[in-house]
Amino acid sequence: MEETRGLWWIILLRAYGKLTGDYSLQERVDVQTGLKMILNLCLTDGFDMFPSLLVTDGSCMIDRRMGIHGHPLEIQALFYSALRCSREMLAANEGSSNLIRAINNRLSALSFHIREYYWVDMKKINEIYRYKTEEYSMDATNKFNIYPEQIPLWLMDWIPEEGGYLIGNLQPAHMDFRFFTLGNLWSIVSSLGTPRQNEAILNLIEAKWDDLGSHMPLKICYPALDNEEWRIITGSDPKNTPWSYHNGGSWPTLLWQFTLACIKMRRIELAKKAVALAEKRLPIDLWPEYYDTRTGKFIGKQSRLYQTWTISGFLTSKMLLKKPEMASMLFWEEDYELLEICVCALNKSGRRKCSRGAARSQILV
Amino acid sequence: MEETRGLWWIILLRAYGKLTGDYSLQERVDVQTGLKMILNLCLTDGFDMFPSLLVTDGSCMIDRRMGIHGHPLEIQALFYSALRCSREMLAANEGSSNLIRAINNRLSALSFHIREYYWVDMKKINEIYRYKTEEYSMDATNKFNIYPEQIPLWLMDWIPEEGGYLIGNLQPAHMDFRFFTLGNLWSIVSSLGTPRQNEAILNLIEAKWDDLGSHMPLKICYPALDNEEWRIITGSDPKNTPWSYHNGGSWPTLLWQFTLACIKMRRIELAKKAVALAEKRLPIDLWPEYYDTRTGKFIGKQSRLYQTWTISGFLTSKMLLKKPEMASMLFWEEDYELLEICVCALNKSGRRKCSRGAARSQILV
Repeated sequence: MEETRGLWWIILLRAYGKLTGDYSLQERVDVQTGLKMILNLCLTDGFDMFPSLLVTDGSCMIDRRMGIHGHPLEIQALFYSALRCSREMLAANEGSSNLIRAINNRLSALSFHIREYYWVDMKKINEIYRYKTEEYSMDATNKFNIYPEQIPLWLMDWIPEEGGYLIGNLQPAHMDFRFFTLGNLWSIVSSLGTPRQNEAILNLIEAKWDDLGSHMPLKICYPALDNEEWRIITGSDPKNTPWSYHNGGSWPTLLWQFTLACIKMRRIELAKKAVALAEKRLPIDLWPEYYDTRTGKFIGKQSRLYQTWTISGFLTSKMLLKKPEMASMLFWEEDYELLEICVCALNKSGRRKCSRGAARSQILV
Repeated sequence: MEETRGLWWIILLRAYGKLTGDYSLQERVDVQTGLKMILNLCLTDGFDMFPSLLVTDGSCMIDRRMGIHGHPLEIQALFYSALRCSREMLAANEGSSNLIRAINNRLSALSFHIREYYWVDMKKINEIYRYKTEEYSMDATNKFNIYPEQIPLWLMDWIPEEGGYLIGNLQPAHMDFRFFTLGNLWSIVSSLGTPRQNEAILNLIEAKWDDLGSHMPLKICYPALDNEEWRIITGSDPKNTPWSYHNGGSWPTLLWQFTLACIKMRRIELAKKAVALAEKRLPIDLWPEYYDTRTGKFIGKQSRLYQTWTISGFLTSKMLLKKPEMASMLFWEEDYELLEICVCALNKSGRRKCSRGAARSQILV
């Protein structure tokens, strides 16, 4: 949890200023110092070779073992959002110019990395399915040496012809193909994904509504780990049994982030459908923390009632739908200047595929 | 691999000076600068809350997916060794005093962490077997919230009444109970383990010789991952099939490190036995990189022949046995001053169990 706490603090600090118009808090010297301290922690050089942030398992909303060690999407999406927030809030002076340059470089490297390597749709999965392995060169198609055997059986049936999503995690020889909701929603909100990708994520959620929305929006991830995967990856966690809690449970608190993403992408009807579903059950069920089973039919096994983030998530959704124009203070549009940095850095390193044209074509709908 | 390269560079730099008497290399300004750069990378603050170093899967001698992401023992043992090397080599001046203080603090925190939490023997495994879960407090016995179901079936039969070892990895809710040879040997060599633990590791290797030495010393780790564990943890890696390559293969290059550990602990006969076994086969088999099967009977599937580190590992072992007094230049004895730092830091933080007496009792044989 350590990682996300600092990132959320930055995101909330910006939201507070934007929504209240009171910028004196973020301008305070101690708050600026806190901001810089978190940024330095995140941007410091380590052994890691990727622009994404390295964390241990359970470092995000899912704070127990779920096989999301390394570079899970949720951390990367919140990291990207926090960097965009910080760039707006950092007082411009001599002391901050190096930091702002570092932020810009990281933003563009991170978005390139995620857009290029985390994205899957039917076409991409078919490519991976036919990957050659052990290529080892700059020109390798299979840059992370993924064995096609790793594509899970459920995915080949599940992936729709329209739409796509960002996978949960990526390491050398390791793609986690599970769909993680918070990371995908936050990629839309922060423009970590391209406009086309962001559109496609909502298309997939709509196409797969019975799996991701169903009786209670929204599933924290899909599908659940079961049998030997549950035993090996969660370490037999009795709280994360299949389709419960973090392991494929449904979390109403995700509603407000879904609503925000829908408003940004002009898909208000989709958000309204989710909120209406929740409205029918949450008050009767006494505002539970989470729901269990494949379709979210049961109140979760150890679910607390009158849970603050369930209630506030629901209320926020209602208010956003009432004043959709306010939502624009909470999301970001594509930053075209960042793309320029990205392209230049790539040209220098001599990677052929990533010409300005290729990068541009990614973002133009 | 990134992590270990820098650490090995430091270890070799010190060994070169010690064995040749030529200290001019390590005193060079550019070499001192390189040393400080690596140390700064390792000692920099990150989100991680443990004194151990956080890495991705495959960051050490095992450079493919093997479920050793997080804080694998091998990295911690090499990190500890590299810090002890650096302390000896850093030119003492105003610029280095802060760095030396940071090194000392990290050394003592790291050795406490490994000695206390990575160590297992029959008694400790019986404790874990009876752990209560979900305790969450400073006084918790089960500090990492380990579910006893995680103790693998093989281990309960395998663990001998005498002896013990340092487990392969430790995370919240996750103990990797596999025996990793390089990390355990290097803990002996660097005194990362207590004198009593170091003794017990060699006792275990001797007691389990049929599993760890057998036809070709030594197994890189024990046991192999098979079936669903192989599929899920290695991602169906065709090179790391059960009892092959990194997944329970036998690597003659580990001989010199085993010999060094044996000489340090005055167990020359054990080293001689291993070297004699290797001498019988290596020249006939044309110096292979690694051997396969549960007992190391076959030359490895994709094993290179005339492999440099097989040959040099064997020659180094022979030379160390011929001049065992030279070995002392390559290992370290317990540093009692470090223990004092550790104890003081712990007292300040108010942990009851770690009184000076308790820490002392750990290291006195």
